Amino acid sequence: MNILAFGPHPDDIEFGCAPVLIQEVAAGHHVQLVVCSRGEAASSGSPTERTQEARQAAAVIGAGIEFLDLGGDCRIEYSAAARLLMTAQIRKFRPHVVLASSTGENQHPDHVAVGRLVRDAARLARYGGLPGVESLPPHSITHLYYYSITQPFEDSRPDVVIDVSAAREKWEAAIACHRSQMRTRAYPELVLARARTLGASIGVEYAVGLWANDPLRLNSLADIPLSSRHF
Amino acid sequence: MNILAFGPHPDDIEFGCAPVLIQEVAAGHHVQLVVCSRGEAASSGSPTERTQEARQAAAVIGAGIEFLDLGGDCRIEYSAAARLLMTAQIRKFRPHVVLASSTGENQHPDHVAVGRLVRDAARLARYGGLPGVESLPPHSITHLYYYSITQPFEDSRPDVVIDVSAAREKWEAAIACHRSQMRTRAYPELVLARARTLGASIGVEYAVGLWANDPLRLNSLADIPLSSRHF
Amino acid sequence: MNILAFGPHPDDIEFGCAPVLIQEVAAGHHVQLVVCSRGEAASSGSPTERTQEARQAAAVIGAGIEFLDLGGDCRIEYSAAARLLMTAQIRKFRPHVVLASSTGENQHPDHVAVGRLVRDAARLARYGGLPGVESLPPHSITHLYYYSITQPFEDSRPDVVIDVSAAREKWEAAIACHRSQMRTRAYPELVLARARTLGASIGVEYAVGLWANDPLRLNSLADIPLSSRHF
Amino acid sequence: MNILAFGPHPDDIEFGCAPVLIQEVAAGHHVQLVVCSRGEAASSGSPTERTQEARQAAAVIGAGIEFLDLGGDCRIEYSAAARLLMTAQIRKFRPHVVLASSTGENQHPDHVAVGRLVRDAARLARYGGLPGVESLPPHSITHLYYYSITQPFEDSRPDVVIDVSAAREKWEAAIACHRSQMRTRAYPELVLARARTLGASIGVEYAVGLWANDPLRLNSLADIPLSSRHF
Amino acid sequence: MNILAFGPHPDDIEFGCAPVLIQEVAAGHHVQLVVCSRGEAASSGSPTERTQEARQAAAVIGAGIEFLDLGGDCRIEYSAAARLLMTAQIRKFRPHVVLASSTGENQHPDHVAVGRLVRDAARLARYGGLPGVESLPPHSITHLYYYSITQPFEDSRPDVVIDVSAAREKWEAAIACHRSQMRTRAYPELVLARARTLGASIGVEYAVGLWANDPLRLNSLADIPLSSRHF
Amino acid sequence: MNILAFGPHPDDIEFGCAPVLIQEVAAGHHVQLVVCSRGEAASSGSPTERTQEARQAAAVIGAGIEFLDLGGDCRIEYSAAARLLMTAQIRKFRPHVVLASSTGENQHPDHVAVGRLVRDAARLARYGGLPGVESLPPHSITHLYYYSITQPFEDSRPDVVIDVSAAREKWEAAIACHRSQMRTRAYPELVLARARTLGASIGVEYAVGLWANDPLRLNSLADIPLSSRHF
Repeated sequence: MNILAFGPHPDDIEFGCAPVLIQEVAAGHHVQLVVCSRGEAASSGSPTERTQEARQAAAVIGAGIEFLDLGGDCRIEYSAAARLLMTAQIRKFRPHVVLASSTGENQHPDHVAVGRLVRDAARLARYGGLPGVESLPPHSITHLYYYSITQPFEDSRPDVVIDVSAAREKWEAAIACHRSQMRTRAYPELVLARARTLGASIGVEYAVGLWANDPLRLNSLADIPLSSRHF
Repeated sequence: MNILAFGPHPDDIEFGCAPVLIQEVAAGHHVQLVVCSRGEAASSGSPTERTQEARQAAAVIGAGIEFLDLGGDCRIEYSAAARLLMTAQIRKFRPHVVLASSTGENQHPDHVAVGRLVRDAARLARYGGLPGVESLPPHSITHLYYYSITQPFEDSRPDVVIDVSAAREKWEAAIACHRSQMRTRAYPELVLARARTLGASIGVEYAVGLWANDPLRLNSLADIPLSSRHF
Repeated sequence: MNILAFGPHPDDIEFGCAPVLIQEVAAGHHVQLVVCSRGEAASSGSPTERTQEARQAAAVIGAGIEFLDLGGDCRIEYSAAARLLMTAQIRKFRPHVVLASSTGENQHPDHVAVGRLVRDAARLARYGGLPGVESLPPHSITHLYYYSITQPFEDSRPDVVIDVSAAREKWEAAIACHRSQMRTRAYPELVLARARTLGASIGVEYAVGLWANDPLRLNSLADIPLSSRHF
Repeated sequence: MNILAFGPHPDDIEFGCAPVLIQEVAAGHHVQLVVCSRGEAASSGSPTERTQEARQAAAVIGAGIEFLDLGGDCRIEYSAAARLLMTAQIRKFRPHVVLASSTGENQHPDHVAVGRLVRDAARLARYGGLPGVESLPPHSITHLYYYSITQPFEDSRPDVVIDVSAAREKWEAAIACHRSQMRTRAYPELVLARARTLGASIGVEYAVGLWANDPLRLNSLADIPLSSRHF
Repeated sequence: MNILAFGPHPDDIEFGCAPVLIQEVAAGHHVQLVVCSRGEAASSGSPTERTQEARQAAAVIGAGIEFLDLGGDCRIEYSAAARLLMTAQIRKFRPHVVLASSTGENQHPDHVAVGRLVRDAARLARYGGLPGVESLPPHSITHLYYYSITQPFEDSRPDVVIDVSAAREKWEAAIACHRSQMRTRAYPELVLARARTLGASIGVEYAVGLWANDPLRLNSLADIPLSSRHF
Repeated sequence: MNILAFGPHPDDIEFGCAPVLIQEVAAGHHVQLVVCSRGEAASSGSPTERTQEARQAAAVIGAGIEFLDLGGDCRIEYSAAARLLMTAQIRKFRPHVVLASSTGENQHPDHVAVGRLVRDAARLARYGGLPGVESLPPHSITHLYYYSITQPFEDSRPDVVIDVSAAREKWEAAIACHRSQMRTRAYPELVLARARTLGASIGVEYAVGLWANDPLRLNSLADIPLSSRHF
C-alpha cells in the first residue's frame, strides 16, 4: 500500500499523523511526505534549518519527502494553480491512501488551504483530459483522510481511531527533529496529551483520530474487529 | 460473529438493513432480530398477520427472531424500563455488532425511541451492578450501527457503505413477506431506489449505508481495501 | 417568468435540474442556460463535442444556452472577476428565478465555485454603482435555488420538492444528448434512481429537490396546496 | 382551508403566530386554537383568569379555541399518552395546516414537548389501526409549520416568511388580552421588535417567520411570486 | 457567590469540573454539590461505599453535598417529576452559578437526563406559581454552564476555559477518593490528559472547558482581560 | 485597552457594532476603525461622499479611522496579499480586542472576506518571521469578536451580549452620518429593531450580540456578574 501525506509546514505531519505513518512503515507500506512550505514565516528557524529538520523527521518516520512550492508559509492559497500542482503529486506517487490537514476554518490558513486543495486534487487526479498534467497518467485514490494538527478540539468526533502506542518513541523522536520549534511553545506536550486522551478513551496508551472524506466501504461488518468502545 | 438487529415494527429491519444481514448470514455469521412491536397501529394487517409476516421474512434472511413488548406500536417510549428490557436482550444474545433504527427526529416516533434505547442499552449492558438484569452476565458489544428505514435523506452522509447487490433477490423476497404492507404504499420501490442511488454512487448495483455510533478503530489504514470513491 | 440556470460543466444542468426546467418551459416560461466551461478536463469528449452535446440538450429542454469562459473545466475560481462576469449574465437575462449548483464542499470544485459565485452575483446584480457592469441596468432577482448534481446525499433535506414525472421522457432524452459522458459511468442511473427515491417518498413517480437560498415569502399558508407528506 | 394551531400556554400562540392566523381568518380560512395548559405555574394570573384571557384573544383573532389537559403548566411530557391526545385533536379538526411551537431545546420545556408531540401526532393521525382513537377517522394533514414564541434567535433561519403588517393592530389587541402577563415583562415589545426586524429585512413593516417540518412541494417555481430578498 | 453543581453519579463532578470548584472555594465562594444517584449500577463499589467516597471528595473540594433520589443509577428520566425535584434544589440553595453535566446524546443516559433537567429547573425556579414547590420562594440564577464528564471530544468547542493548574493536587485527591472506581478503568488519566491538552492549547498547565447555556453578558469588552489564544 | 474594528464598507461598523464602541470610548478605551473599501459599488453616494460620511461617523463614535484599499467595494478577495495588509494593520495598532464582520456565507461577499481575512491576520500578526511585514513588530491580540451587519438572523446565538441602551442616541447619530445610504432602504430601522429585540430578551432597552472566535478565558466564574437570562 502507498500512502501520501501532505503537510502545510515542515512540522505539521509530525504533530498530526506521524505515529500512524510510523506504524504503516513498520507494516511494510510505502509512505511519502509532501511538505507545502518551508516554514518561512516562523518566529524561530530559517527555511534552510526547517527543511533540514523535516528531512530528519522523515528519516525517523521511514518516509520519503519532497517539498512543494505553493508561494511560501502563510501565502498558500486555495487556487486552481495550486490544485494542479497537488494533482501532479498524486499522479506521481499513485497512493492508495492520502492524508491531509483538516479543513476546519479556525486554524492556520495554510492548514485549511492544503486540506481543501488535497481534497480537490484527489478528485482531479482521475480526470483523463485535465490540461496541465497530461504527462502523468490519471490515478484514482482509494481513501482520503484528514488529520488534526494542534487543535485541542475539532468540530466533530473522528471517524477513525488508531492505537499508536507502539509508535510513541519514534513519534517523539520525529517531533524532536524540529529543534527550532521546540524553543517557545508546548506543541509536543499538546499533541501527546491529546493522543493520551483519545487513547485512554479507547483503552490504550495513545491513539490518533482521523476524519474520513467519504463513507468507509466495507465488505462485511466483520471487517473491523476492533472496538473504540471502552467506557 | 453475532449480529443483533433491533426493529421498531415488523417490517423496519427488512426495509432498512436486511440485505446486509443476508450477506452476513451467507458469510457464516449468526444474526438475530428483535422486533419491538407487532404493528398494532397499521392501517392494514392485524398484529397476528404481521407477526407471521416478520417470522417468514426472518426465515428468508436466515435469522432468528424474537418479539419484545414495549407497549405496542406508536406507544414505544424512551424510558428507563424499556432501556432495561433492551439491555437484557443484548446480554442474552451477546452480539459483537448491534444494529438499530437511526435517531433522527423527523420520522416515526417509535423509530427514534428504539434507536435511542438501543444506544443506551448497548452501554448499560456492560455495567456489572445494574439492578434488574443481574441474572444475565454483563456484555460489551464491539460496534453499534444505525440504519435508515424509509427516509429519502438523513441528516448526514452514512459512515459506512456496503455493496448489497448479491443480496437483492433475497432482499426483495424478505420485503415481499410483508404482504399486508404492500397494498397501499411504495415502500419497496423507495428503499430499492435509494439503494440503487447509493450503489450507483460507489459503482455497484445496490448499496446500503450505515451510521456508526463510535469512531471505527482500525489497526492499519490497509484494513479497508475497498473504496467508496467512484465519481 | 424568466428562469436562468447556471451549470459548471456541459452536463450538470441536465443531471441536476433539467426536468424542472422542462416543465417550466411547458408551462410557458422562458428558460436560459449559462454553462461555465466546456468540459475540457473530461476523460471522454472534446470541448467541441461537449459544447455540441449541450446545445442539443438545451434544444430538448426548450431553453436558450450560452457559454461563459471562467478559465475552463477544473479551473473555475471563486474570484471577484468571475463574480462580475456572472453578475453581467444576470443583468443581461433579468431572471425572476436563478438556479445554481449547490455549494456543499465535498464535490467537484467547479460546482462549489459556481454555486458561490452565483449566490454573490445575484446580490451584486442590484447594486447601481458596481464598476465594470455599468452598461447593464441593475436587476433584482426574486429567488435563488440550488440543485444537486450527482451526489447521492446532501448535507440537509431539500427545501422544495417538485414532481417531475411528466418530464421523465424528455429528461432522459436531454441526458442522452451527452453521448461522450455515457460511456463509462452510471450518472444517468444515479440521478434517475435519486429522483425515483424522492418521488416515492412524496407519492409520485419522480421528484427533484431544490435548496432555497432565502426564506420563501408567502402571502398565505394557502399558497402551497400540495403536500410532500406521503408516509 | 382549515388551520389548527397548538399553543403550550394561554399566550404562546398570540406571541408566536397570531398575526398569521388573523390574516388567514380575514382571507376566509377557518382557524382553531388548542391550548395545552392554563398557565398554572405563572407568577401572575390564575388559571381561570388566563383561560378567560385566551378566550378573549381567540375572539380577537377570529378563531375557535379549546383547552387540552396534558398535566398542567410546566408538567407537559413527551409521552405516548399525550401524543394520542394530540392525535385525537388533529383527527377531530381535520386541518390542512398545523402550527406548533418550535422544538429547539433551550426554551420552556413545555414549548419543546408540545412541538415534538404535534410533530408525532401529525404522523399518527393517518394510521388506520391506531388503538385509542378508533372513533375518529384517520386524517392526513398537508403541512406542519413551527413558530417561535419569545426567543430572539432560533438555531436556523425561517423557511417561510409572511408579511403581517396588515394584522398589526389586531395582533396587539390579541396580545393585550393577556392582561395578567403584561405586568412584569417585555414580551410584547420583544415579539413586535422581532417582527419589525424580520419585516425590515424583507422590505415590509412587520413579518413573521415559520419553520417547515417537510420540504415544500411546488407545482412550479412560479407558485411563489413574492421575494424575501430585499437588501 | 453561591455555586451549585449537579452530578449524575457520585464521581461525575470530580471528573468533570472539580478543579473549577476547588478554585472558587479558595476564592471564598460557597459551593454545594447535588449528586443524583448513588452509583447503584456500577461494576465496582456498593451504593454505601460510593456515597461515602463522594462525601470525602466533597470535603476535599471544600463543598457541601446532598444526594437526590431520582430513581437510581441508570434509571434517571427526563420527567416532569424529576424536573420539580431539581427546581426545589435550586430554590433551596439559591445559586448564582449552576453547573450541570452536558446534554450531548452519545454518553451515559443519566448524564444527558441530568443536564436537561437542570436546564429546565433553572428556568422553572423563577416561576412564582409553580405548583409543588410553593414553600420555596422563586429564584433566578445568573448563569448555567455545562461540564463534560469523560468524553474525549464534545460536539463543539467550549465557550469558556479556566486555568486550573493551581488546583491540580486537590483535584487528584478528590478523584482518588473514589477508590472503588479506580480499579479497572483509566478515567483519571483520561480527564487529566484532557485537561493537559486544553491547558497546553492556552499556554497553561491544566485547563477545564465549560459550555454556556446562554450568551455571556458583559459590561465592557475589557471585562475579560485573559486570552485563550496561545498558538 | 485598544480596540480595532474592521469594516468592509463605510457604514458596516456603524450598523454592526458602533454602540459597543461608543461605550468603550466613554469608558476611556482607545478605538480605531479600519474601513476596507469606499463603497464604490453603491447605488447611492460617491466614494468621496462615503469616505466623508465614514469620517463623520468615526468622529461621533470617538474613534480614529483609516481606509484600506483591498481592490474596492464588491472586489475584496480572500487572498494572501489582502491577509498581509490586514496583518500590518493589526501590528500597527496593536489592539487587545479586534472586531470583524461575521463570516456566515449568505451575505455580501465583502463581509465574508473581511471576516475571514481578519481571523487569519489576527493569527499571522504574531509570527516573527512573516515576510512582508518585518518592519512592524509581532503582536498577539487578546480577543477576536465578530459582529453581524444587517442580517436579521445568524446561524447561531451570539456568545456575548452587551447592553447598549446608553449609547442609543450617539448610535443613531453615527448611522445618520451615512446620509447617502438613508435614501432607499430601512437599514437603520432593521438594526435598531434587532437591537431592541435582543435587548428585550435580556431585560434592557437595546443590546448588541457578538460572536467570539475563541473560548473566553475566565479567572473565576465570578468574573461575569451580569446575566443574559431574563425570561
